[in-house]
Amino acid sequence: MSVALIAQSGGPTPVINASLLGVVEEARRHPEISALYGARFGIAGVISQSFVDLLQQSPETLAAIARTPASALGSSRLEVKEQQLEQILAVLRAHEVRYFFYNGGNGSMGTASQIAAYARESGYELQVIGIPKTIDNDIVETDHTPGYASTARFFAHATRDIGADNRALPGQVEFIEILGRNVGWIVAATSLASQSSDDAPHLVYLPENPLPLEKLLDDVHEVYRRLGRCVVTVCEGQLDERGEPFGADVRSGSRGSLAMNLAHRLAMLVSERLKIRARSEKPGLLGRATSAYISRRDWDEARLCGSSAVRSAVNGASGKMVGLVRENQRSYAVKPVLVDLERVAFAERTFPSEWQNEAKNGILPAFRQFASPLIEEVTPFSPLKDIPIPKKTYMTGAKHR
Amino acid sequence: MSVALIAQSGGPTPVINASLLGVVEEARRHPEISALYGARFGIAGVISQSFVDLLQQSPETLAAIARTPASALGSSRLEVKEQQLEQILAVLRAHEVRYFFYNGGNGSMGTASQIAAYARESGYELQVIGIPKTIDNDIVETDHTPGYASTARFFAHATRDIGADNRALPGQVEFIEILGRNVGWIVAATSLASQSSDDAPHLVYLPENPLPLEKLLDDVHEVYRRLGRCVVTVCEGQLDERGEPFGADVRSGSRGSLAMNLAHRLAMLVSERLKIRARSEKPGLLGRATSAYISRRDWDEARLCGSSAVRSAVNGASGKMVGLVRENQRSYAVKPVLVDLERVAFAERTFPSEWQNEAKNGILPAFRQFASPLIEEVTPFSPLKDIPIPKKTYMTGAKHR
Repeated sequence: MSVALIAQSGGPTPVINASLLGVVEEARRHPEISALYGARFGIAGVISQSFVDLLQQSPETLAAIARTPASALGSSRLEVKEQQLEQILAVLRAHEVRYFFYNGGNGSMGTASQIAAYARESGYELQVIGIPKTIDNDIVETDHTPGYASTARFFAHATRDIGADNRALPGQVEFIEILGRNVGWIVAATSLASQSSDDAPHLVYLPENPLPLEKLLDDVHEVYRRLGRCVVTVCEGQLDERGEPFGADVRSGSRGSLAMNLAHRLAMLVSERLKIRARSEKPGLLGRATSAYISRRDWDEARLCGSSAVRSAVNGASGKMVGLVRENQRSYAVKPVLVDLERVAFAERTFPSEWQNEAKNGILPAFRQFASPLIEEVTPFSPLKDIPIPKKTYMTGAKHR
Repeated sequence: MSVALIAQSGGPTPVINASLLGVVEEARRHPEISALYGARFGIAGVISQSFVDLLQQSPETLAAIARTPASALGSSRLEVKEQQLEQILAVLRAHEVRYFFYNGGNGSMGTASQIAAYARESGYELQVIGIPKTIDNDIVETDHTPGYASTARFFAHATRDIGADNRALPGQVEFIEILGRNVGWIVAATSLASQSSDDAPHLVYLPENPLPLEKLLDDVHEVYRRLGRCVVTVCEGQLDERGEPFGADVRSGSRGSLAMNLAHRLAMLVSERLKIRARSEKPGLLGRATSAYISRRDWDEARLCGSSAVRSAVNGASGKMVGLVRENQRSYAVKPVLVDLERVAFAERTFPSEWQNEAKNGILPAFRQFASPLIEEVTPFSPLKDIPIPKKTYMTGAKHR
């Protein structure tokens, strides 16, 4: 008897459960896998042996959860400490778990790597395969990461929509706060909403670069002078040239500190300093929690990463993560490959600086070539045709009544 | 020659252009209407004679803009002053405008009423008909207002989605800031996301009632003790018992002051006072700017109000707004009626207190009966079936390796 176990880790993505579906579907095809358990609430559920039977789920249930954002098994932000590895391995041993699949981001790949190493040292046969998942697209050794495209697609549409609102009711600067602490992959994708320099977003900033407040104010002022309106997309993790979040409120957590109201703070500063009406929107977690903007390709690839993980494990691989390689440039296609967990663990893939404009407030077309096949089209809103009516001369005043 | 003119006013709704479509379609059917002009950027476009020809738009253009949020003509928040009425009438006279349609909220109905009165006093024959539009649902003399259901539908889904995220990754209090300054119709609709007391939203507050901070903290604490998580929906305009926005930053504008970061402020207070991890999301204008959650019924009714306005004007009505009457309780149907603009102008329809629970932190089922036919179903996410795996006993320690 060989049991397989899967756990979901960290923040959900809109397609995280498509990977779970891929794992379950593929596990059913391999008689070597006698049972497939899902850990409730991530690695915490492994430690507490809180397992649910996944092979006994009905096809209808699986189909439904595969279209549902938010980790169906529940997730956890628990960071595994050295001394917990022994306990984790004891649980795996007790349940005769021989295949462990860990669906998470770069930190989780580090944990998976540690578990694989600990099992090897202990002489316990265990195949550990990482399934990549992050909205941030910051995992190295893969063309991109499942989850990214759907969240990017949400924010690209949000920018188009708020941009249309800003155009219809001008005289205002809009800051849209985008998910992303350290890397600008998602905020860069808001540029897909723009077909011309008229369209939102008018300014896009990457958290990879410090943003001096004076530069931001100058940039906003210039757009506002030109259009009488302005939409700015900026990451929750954007810092100023002193490495500070512009005076925003900060929350400290296990993953470092994070500004809680960055875009609001910037809107206040624009309002005070430029005397222009400004406001901010923060769709926040909606960007990872909503299913309305799932990219079909993202969903397919998330599922593919799940099924590939199971195939690889059954074929004897361990200590690897499933990565995606783009096969050619003409028509989009990817194939799954295996990469060393150790090379992925705790590394961070930043947004390529060559895809940013020189003024560091916009994204170049090369990024669109990379991202469009993943994110799909952002259809621009079609305007009324401008068929003007000639003005008439008229006079006012009581005598003309 | 009799020209008709339409202007859109105030903040857009997801279905505002369906009303525009209704006006254009119906105008085509009446030979009395020789031309139909659209004013660019609301009443400001009337004053500046910035008109676009609407009968010359192609059916494809009209079909496309009718599915597009954000006023296709452009809108304005300009409040018409007494002395501008003369100029407005002079423009209408110069262009031989005999039908004026004003698509807006209660304030705009006041302006429409003033224009109708001024034309009558001046002896200028003009049919003025108001077409109701507001996401807030605060217009009196109508069962509900086009625009409300689609924005309410957005926020109900946002609450479901963020609720699922909060369930998957518990240990946190989530505040979702909902559009709404004075009335709680939209925030009440977030209750449609909940099928059981387990589901978000766990707490819903109406801006009609002051909310003492201590009560909020007690309520949150109680939910958190019970579930280990909590989702609160609260309006941007919520005030505490002193009539203050809990210390949030305030922007003053023509429509009074508005807290710019209410939910953020509440999350900070919960975090500080209860020592519970808390954050906030503010989808903000997305709620009125996105088309992904348009209610088909809302769209149909917005179009109906547009076409009814034209029919009524051609039949000689003036100084009226199109209202909706719910015809019977068994199967949902509405019919358009005409109500006096004067009765609508500057009135405000608050959320019925009898639809709120006694603890003033939740919404009663009677509201669901009212709202469900408009907003349509909010499909709950289906969970994995709980088929637990029995726990095993195991021992840890070096000697057992």
